[in-house]
Amino acid sequence: MPTLVIANKCYSSWSLRSWLLLKQMGVAFDEIVIPLDQPDTKEKVLRHSPAGKVPILIDGDVTVWESIAIMEHVGEAYGAPVWPEDRKARAMARSVAAEMHAGFSALRSACPMNLGRKYGPRDRGEAVAGDVARFSEIVRQARERFGAGGPFLFGAFSAADAMYAPLATRLDTYSIALDPATQAYVSTILSLPAFQEWRGAALKEAWIVDADEVDEEAIENYRIAA
Amino acid sequence: MPTLVIANKCYSSWSLRSWLLLKQMGVAFDEIVIPLDQPDTKEKVLRHSPAGKVPILIDGDVTVWESIAIMEHVGEAYGAPVWPEDRKARAMARSVAAEMHAGFSALRSACPMNLGRKYGPRDRGEAVAGDVARFSEIVRQARERFGAGGPFLFGAFSAADAMYAPLATRLDTYSIALDPATQAYVSTILSLPAFQEWRGAALKEAWIVDADEVDEEAIENYRIAA
Ligand SMILES: N[C@@H](CCC(=O)N[C@@H](CS)C(=O)NCC(=O)O)C(=O)O
Ligand SMILES: N[C@@H](CCC(=O)N[C@@H](CS)C(=O)NCC(=O)O)C(=O)O
Repeated sequence: MPTLVIANKCYSSWSLRSWLLLKQMGVAFDEIVIPLDQPDTKEKVLRHSPAGKVPILIDGDVTVWESIAIMEHVGEAYGAPVWPEDRKARAMARSVAAEMHAGFSALRSACPMNLGRKYGPRDRGEAVAGDVARFSEIVRQARERFGAGGPFLFGAFSAADAMYAPLATRLDTYSIALDPATQAYVSTILSLPAFQEWRGAALKEAWIVDADEVDEEAIENYRIAA
Repeated sequence: MPTLVIANKCYSSWSLRSWLLLKQMGVAFDEIVIPLDQPDTKEKVLRHSPAGKVPILIDGDVTVWESIAIMEHVGEAYGAPVWPEDRKARAMARSVAAEMHAGFSALRSACPMNLGRKYGPRDRGEAVAGDVARFSEIVRQARERFGAGGPFLFGAFSAADAMYAPLATRLDTYSIALDPATQAYVSTILSLPAFQEWRGAALKEAWIVDADEVDEEAIENYRIAA
């Protein structure tokens, strides 16, 4: 059984992506959680991967890190339907997944993933609005062209959905206004049983990562007092 | 025959990656060059891809963008040996290629790819030094573990080499001091006939992109006066 090394579920957006993909693909795995921002975080992560970041998948004698690489490995090693079968859908799914891997930096830095709190709506600037618009465009195009077989970007759940899941949580917890199609997609992701399982565990964590707590009054505190 | 949409060869590091992979894999392709930073750049790029960035590969009725996605597509659609065969090497190759896709931001922003000029050595700060050290570590580990069959990271040329090629040009044109193994690897990339073909075309381009010309006195000007 492979082992996925991840960080705090409340804050680690990259960890959520691979974890959710493995769950949705029905691949059983063990997990190791290394909390972020502790004096020994780096040292613990470096024990598993020379790149010093999570997630890391340890699969027998193979170690693979970086979200996109982990996802391709899962597709190959487990014959899992990580990407859509149709060539055109598959190309677009890989393209938008890679866009997420390297992009959406305005939204990611202004609105760090934090499942513990909900913030009210506010103007978050043009660059964030541009990222939100690009996401809505991806949802619209993917669903219109390839979404017929199910509620996800390309019908059935794929690695593209796993890549965008942490973005869906941000759109929700930062109360960002969305068009109805994007809102419906975000709700689909957030109501997935596997996501709910992740969130439930996140809300029980006691660690607070100051760097990911924005300087705003929260309108809701979801954390379960420890 | 597929068409690769790219930008100026002198400056567009992302374009170089996919172009070099296609050449090394022996896949014939047409190219369309859209110069960066012109009033109509965005509009021209958007005609080919909704993400608004190059490279873009148009392969019959399939359009694929983002370097990593293009590389996976080339492997699947042309049966090309884009990744090493060995499972462990393959996992590491995908991991380090994805590291490049999202990382090395200090080196990338301090030292934009610019094949037209050579700059002298100088202290470029701790973050840049950290990126250079990580690259050297990747070269060392990949070559030691998997490099027996040839001069590239994993022996034969793979997508990982294509991903790091623009970084090799920067280490050279910004005169960054390297250990002998890294230096040898950089020389291997820079002396590839396909890279020399790209560079030859780059030096004939007349376009200057101010944003990628650093504020330093060049020690050599390689451009061929137009
Ligand atoms: N591009 C990487 C990003 C991974 C990443 O940034 N992980 C964060 C946690 S969400 C991390 O490990 N941070 C710890 C550190 O940088 O020390 C991926 O796709 O996996
Ligand atoms: N993550 C993208 C990066 C592509 C990229 O940033 N391309 C630059 C040229 S090197 C570009 O298209 N810039 C034009 C623009 O952003 O308007 C990839 O892997 O292809």
